[in-house]
Amino acid sequence: MAKTGIRQLADHLGISIGTVSRALNDRPDVNPETRKRVLAAATDFGYVPNQSGRSLRQGTTNTIGFIVESGTDGSGSNDNFFLEVFGAIQHVFARHNLDLVVLPCSTDEDPLHHLQRMVSRRIVDALIISATRRKDPRISFLADAHIPFITLGRSSTPGPHPWLDLDFEGVANTAMDRLVAKGHRRIALGLPSNDINLGFLLLDGYKAGLERQEIAFDPALVLRAASSEQGGYQLAHEVLSMGNRPTAVLLVHELMAIGLYRRMNDAGLEPGKDLSVIGFRESPLSRFLIPALTCFKLSLRDLGQALGESLLATIPAYAEHYPQGTVRRVWPMELVPGDSDGPPRM
Amino acid sequence: MAKTGIRQLADHLGISIGTVSRALNDRPDVNPETRKRVLAAATDFGYVPNQSGRSLRQGTTNTIGFIVESGTDGSGSNDNFFLEVFGAIQHVFARHNLDLVVLPCSTDEDPLHHLQRMVSRRIVDALIISATRRKDPRISFLADAHIPFITLGRSSTPGPHPWLDLDFEGVANTAMDRLVAKGHRRIALGLPSNDINLGFLLLDGYKAGLERQEIAFDPALVLRAASSEQGGYQLAHEVLSMGNRPTAVLLVHELMAIGLYRRMNDAGLEPGKDLSVIGFRESPLSRFLIPALTCFKLSLRDLGQALGESLLATIPAYAEHYPQGTVRRVWPMELVPGDSDGPPRM
Repeated sequence: MAKTGIRQLADHLGISIGTVSRALNDRPDVNPETRKRVLAAATDFGYVPNQSGRSLRQGTTNTIGFIVESGTDGSGSNDNFFLEVFGAIQHVFARHNLDLVVLPCSTDEDPLHHLQRMVSRRIVDALIISATRRKDPRISFLADAHIPFITLGRSSTPGPHPWLDLDFEGVANTAMDRLVAKGHRRIALGLPSNDINLGFLLLDGYKAGLERQEIAFDPALVLRAASSEQGGYQLAHEVLSMGNRPTAVLLVHELMAIGLYRRMNDAGLEPGKDLSVIGFRESPLSRFLIPALTCFKLSLRDLGQALGESLLATIPAYAEHYPQGTVRRVWPMELVPGDSDGPPRM
Repeated sequence: MAKTGIRQLADHLGISIGTVSRALNDRPDVNPETRKRVLAAATDFGYVPNQSGRSLRQGTTNTIGFIVESGTDGSGSNDNFFLEVFGAIQHVFARHNLDLVVLPCSTDEDPLHHLQRMVSRRIVDALIISATRRKDPRISFLADAHIPFITLGRSSTPGPHPWLDLDFEGVANTAMDRLVAKGHRRIALGLPSNDINLGFLLLDGYKAGLERQEIAFDPALVLRAASSEQGGYQLAHEVLSMGNRPTAVLLVHELMAIGLYRRMNDAGLEPGKDLSVIGFRESPLSRFLIPALTCFKLSLRDLGQALGESLLATIPAYAEHYPQGTVRRVWPMELVPGDSDGPPRM
């Protein structure tokens, strides 16, 4: 029965070809029971619609790609973040019979080269790209290729595309105000070790916070480390070795807090008392750490939904459902006070 | 120049069409400098090979899918695990101009339904599926559909497919021997709350370990919780509330240790002294936790490489390079002693 067609399925089930087609295509206007029967029959009869053929005829694949970084370097990039965002995007895409595929770019490979290959494979209709760099050639490549895309992250590379990005400047400003109000004056900043754009934004916010508080900027307090437990351990080591030691530190990634806590413990010091720490994003981790990490929260579900909808808003076939135009939005984050950032020791 | 073809590119560069084609297809037999020139020219001239057309002609997409679970339930599935495995698989696939795409299955959706849709989209030539269940209908579906696949995880659903799986029984046996040797007799087991197959394997190993040590199995010591920080917190709460409290616990996921440590700290108790803990997989986390978590390590790079190669070994076009046949292999894990599992308090 390998050659079972949609007509045979419809005959077998005693329903119209149109209903079978709508059920197979996950359209919303099909009774759930009918859909179940159609899918069961399609499986039993070995019916598989030819997506490659469809794709040539319609010029679409009905899949949208999300490019993330993979790798074997143990850099600790936090993909629990991504899995939750994926779930929310899929929820949006499911309304339109679209599927999300994730395209991991190995850290061994040039991100532009990877993107070009993915585009040449024609497996997706549109793209979400993340981990934007200060200058990001992927943006102009996609714009030139007329492929709809949205970036999770800003860049100084101009382009007509929509983007969403977390409010790194706001986080740094709020953290600086909070630490200064508690009496801190020497505040270190832990930045990523690569040229990802968010590092520049965090530094901007940090400088703005210092200026508002009339504290001179000291480049020696800007440290760089991997966004991982190991990076946090090394950063703490560096802080503890400094002559005029800072009394507080703002970290670009919450995973770093685990290593920092460990290094302080090894030195017989207490986070939140001997060195105040503010992490970045609230995660289950931050809440269960001892002491609980002061950090910033956002709804990953809302962010994922906005990413999905903002992308569809720029694709003609879906724009009527999403009249928001070209979204360019800084996503706010809310302070979650913990026990990791007390006043400096006298 | 939107209609630039491969001939125009070859003319422009003054090289043969064959070389251009090999460069564009990432074949190994092209000088790296030439490849760079070809790719640059292809980008400049807006050349995009029509993958959909190729796919119809050759019957292949040159992409292989890896199905993982996504979701917005914060269940803490640990995908740092996956990103490292992906990197290693990509390394294998790159030898053959194959790309890895990740197909996240939302926790809202039935995994079989998701798989059927992915297959019907024809975006991949072969599949890697993970999080296998005790009975897993995806296995018979893929076998019936004649799609090459490998599972990361065993199942009681039979099938002719290759699989790799971590040595859950071995981990449980080693942990039990170690804890009993330290004087523990009442040892709890923290299992996942769903019907993922690894929970059954871990329970088998736990029971075998008890039997060898001539300790009676007590079902009250088998606890179930989410594989997350929150799950570990709840599990610790349950353990601390027990009348005849166990003196040690083996956890199915290392993330649970964070919540367990927190709950013990809240109760004024010390992990490793008041309750001994052995985690599952060694990760940067385990090393930096205080106290360091006793756990088990494996090379994710080696595991990913074996997954990729074992899959290709079952695909006719690649089998000559991988003569290992149908691989069905339990992957060993090695004890990493930490400070979290001292002897019981007298």
